[in-house]
Amino acid sequence: MTERWGVFEARFAGPEDATFEATFTHGDRTVRVPGFPDGDGTHVVRFSPDVEGEWAYVTTSGAAELDGCTGGFRAVPPSPGNHGPVSVAGTYHFAYADGTPFRPVGTTVYNWVHQPEERYRETLEAVADGGFTKLRFLVFPQGGNHVGHVPDAFPFAKDGEEWDVSRIDVAFFRKIDRAVRDLLEAGVQADVILFHPYDSGQFGLDGLTAEQDAAYLRHLVARLSAYRNVWWSLANEYDILSRPEERWDEVFRTLQETDPHGRLRSIHNWIRLYDHNKPWVTHVSLQNGSAVAEFGRALLYRDAYRKPIVLDEIKYEGDTAERWGNLSARELVHRFWIATVSGTYASHGESYLVDGGTLSVVAGGPFRGQSPPRLEFLRRILEEVGGAGLDPIDKWDDPTYTAGIPRQIYLQYLGLDAPQAWTFRLPQGVRGERLQVGDRFAVDVIDTWNMTVETVDREFTLTSVERNTATADAEPVALPAGEALALRIRRIDVDPG
Amino acid sequence: MTERWGVFEARFAGPEDATFEATFTHGDRTVRVPGFPDGDGTHVVRFSPDVEGEWAYVTTSGAAELDGCTGGFRAVPPSPGNHGPVSVAGTYHFAYADGTPFRPVGTTVYNWVHQPEERYRETLEAVADGGFTKLRFLVFPQGGNHVGHVPDAFPFAKDGEEWDVSRIDVAFFRKIDRAVRDLLEAGVQADVILFHPYDSGQFGLDGLTAEQDAAYLRHLVARLSAYRNVWWSLANEYDILSRPEERWDEVFRTLQETDPHGRLRSIHNWIRLYDHNKPWVTHVSLQNGSAVAEFGRALLYRDAYRKPIVLDEIKYEGDTAERWGNLSARELVHRFWIATVSGTYASHGESYLVDGGTLSVVAGGPFRGQSPPRLEFLRRILEEVGGAGLDPIDKWDDPTYTAGIPRQIYLQYLGLDAPQAWTFRLPQGVRGERLQVGDRFAVDVIDTWNMTVETVDREFTLTSVERNTATADAEPVALPAGEALALRIRRIDVDPG
Repeated sequence: MTERWGVFEARFAGPEDATFEATFTHGDRTVRVPGFPDGDGTHVVRFSPDVEGEWAYVTTSGAAELDGCTGGFRAVPPSPGNHGPVSVAGTYHFAYADGTPFRPVGTTVYNWVHQPEERYRETLEAVADGGFTKLRFLVFPQGGNHVGHVPDAFPFAKDGEEWDVSRIDVAFFRKIDRAVRDLLEAGVQADVILFHPYDSGQFGLDGLTAEQDAAYLRHLVARLSAYRNVWWSLANEYDILSRPEERWDEVFRTLQETDPHGRLRSIHNWIRLYDHNKPWVTHVSLQNGSAVAEFGRALLYRDAYRKPIVLDEIKYEGDTAERWGNLSARELVHRFWIATVSGTYASHGESYLVDGGTLSVVAGGPFRGQSPPRLEFLRRILEEVGGAGLDPIDKWDDPTYTAGIPRQIYLQYLGLDAPQAWTFRLPQGVRGERLQVGDRFAVDVIDTWNMTVETVDREFTLTSVERNTATADAEPVALPAGEALALRIRRIDVDPG
Repeated sequence: MTERWGVFEARFAGPEDATFEATFTHGDRTVRVPGFPDGDGTHVVRFSPDVEGEWAYVTTSGAAELDGCTGGFRAVPPSPGNHGPVSVAGTYHFAYADGTPFRPVGTTVYNWVHQPEERYRETLEAVADGGFTKLRFLVFPQGGNHVGHVPDAFPFAKDGEEWDVSRIDVAFFRKIDRAVRDLLEAGVQADVILFHPYDSGQFGLDGLTAEQDAAYLRHLVARLSAYRNVWWSLANEYDILSRPEERWDEVFRTLQETDPHGRLRSIHNWIRLYDHNKPWVTHVSLQNGSAVAEFGRALLYRDAYRKPIVLDEIKYEGDTAERWGNLSARELVHRFWIATVSGTYASHGESYLVDGGTLSVVAGGPFRGQSPPRLEFLRRILEEVGGAGLDPIDKWDDPTYTAGIPRQIYLQYLGLDAPQAWTFRLPQGVRGERLQVGDRFAVDVIDTWNMTVETVDREFTLTSVERNTATADAEPVALPAGEALALRIRRIDVDPG
């Protein structure tokens, strides 16, 4: 018995070097699922059923012991808290399989899995307690600068000086398994980074051939993809790895072909953007801090790609000398709010020096910065929005930079201005339901830094709807002192549905 | 005898409804060139040789009179001023076939060709005298609002209420021919807009079927593509025409297959951007005024598309009520300079009411606004830059928004600030030649509105080059009063080549 979107696992004995797959059937449906070796002659298949009912399987293999094995299980309703995997919803947003909106407010600890046990646990707790909904981390350990700890396990055995990808180190991959499961338990999406350029000649894992990539991918996909919180991030700063772009296309295609669960796929850049319009990219993962340093930028990526935009690196809160690592907490929170009203999402990371030279974005540990509680506050605001998510209403011509769901709910972020008062005004836009004279709204004043929400004690009724703008004939709303305020404008004369 | 990149034309008699093509050969090369009917049983083939020497041709047709006709010509060196067709150079820029850089500073008169003769002439003179290097105009006449003149010719004959695209109106297409030739003579690129949504039910030319599109395209390509100044713009505001995106893909593919000269291809949007990463798009033609209303926006399109970015509609200088038609001249010129330091290009248009209701961007006529001389001034500045063109040097992290060619020449635009002084500072960036201590520069102060260039009467020698920034230990440069100043920073200790 396995719950829907849970993990069914079967184990078989067979020759060390055998390969096998299992075909799962449910009524007319069949799903081919790759198996993987898990050490000591044990082979494993993991499968996540997406519908309830009876599933049966049969294995196929060139090795007789692994061929023709049959079995089955019943998929039962999901337990509370299991909303299924996340996929793209409403073009620019995400939702769980059961329809619950998913709002990415992620963080990043690159070398998390490769830390000593106590540090690993501290990070997991920090991420979970911090309320982050996604964590980016590397499969291959990081080497070189900013790395203080050499891990005790590596993915492959060595053949002289060369990695032999056919000889998997099970201890290494079980650490990755555990990390994904620990995040699943904590309700956090695992943004698994498959390749990275931060090796500095220390381990040589940035120098695999295309064939070695494919063998590694087959193993990792077979091992992890049944976990419903897995997202595939092909690389961090892919363009620092000097590989032709076709090779990344090939990795995407291999993932598409071998992943029976079709988990989300993205790739993250240094200065050269991958063509995210390619069909195998499910959402756009970007590094570009400047895109959310000012209004009016990040939303251009939405137009270019028509996919969810996740700004996975917008520079880090921290105190390091590099310009990517010394944002103030206020600036980072400000950028998240700009991302929000741009109809995009952002990720957090901390760049404080720890352990005498390592960075917290590499090694993890408890958060030191001031932004996490403010980002959790933002996440709660986002989760209170029903529907797919917030889209810019009048994307290129709105001086109020309002995102929302037309005629339902809106967020206006006032940014670094600190106005004394706010006059009710909504953009009309050209998509979705049209604002009408007589529509009634409540207004909440949000202090994004002090994490307060105060509802204005009067209603606002639209008295004028022109081509681009709707206004209410009402006194301005007095605003509290301080910058980084936002307005939430909620329709109240209808059931928001 | 035809000059290289000129037009060779041959005419043949044959049945009205025949089709034919000619195969041109030069040594080992063969080029298949479609012919077109030109009325009264005359069929024409036009071909532009891209290499000098002897060319021969032979025709093929199902009609005996048009089959197996042979001939030839000698292609001689181009005359002065003939630099060949424009194509993409340096990823983000353009150059003529002889290597001369081409700097797009375009304008727009949609319904130009369909005006009375005197107005047609006035517009041509205004564009040429204004120094614009590209003109966007419609093939099909515009109907509905803002249109005061019903043209005297239409592209096809009518079969009852329906257009019969197989019956070309030669008088109509000869007007298009003439427009392209007139622009060629004036040294202006013809950005020919093949389809548009501004019909308002008046002519019905926005309702052709895919098959009718293809027949029209074959005729237009055969007729026009030999002119070296032709650019194909598939549509203005393509997404207002309610056609599936695949249909636009098909138009692009038809152009690719039928155009023997491979002229530039783009498509222009209303609010939904086409996927400009598709291989048949040669350069990105965009409508989005906000992209150049502030710094730091337009350059994001470069990353997304890795093609030249031409912002063909950034709102118009004018006095109309619509928000797309009432920019001040200062604002429009400002936006062109933002486009410039963003490593992109922009187009001009005027939206003044003329002829009792028509707009000048539709009907043309002499320019009424103040921006054209400032744009000609900008064009001269751009033409003084050698090399492919100006690229942002440190694209996401440069508070000076400097574009240039590393270690050679730079433009910094100070925008709407009006600082009293400027301190020498250059970004280093991560691409191209590295700035070195000791590099020597001259600085020109440019007043973009008053159209003056004043060279600072001292040299600047780099005394410090850090990771991201190079500075000279020198007194600040006093700046003249006024906003919209720019600095041109020229390396002087080497031959710029």
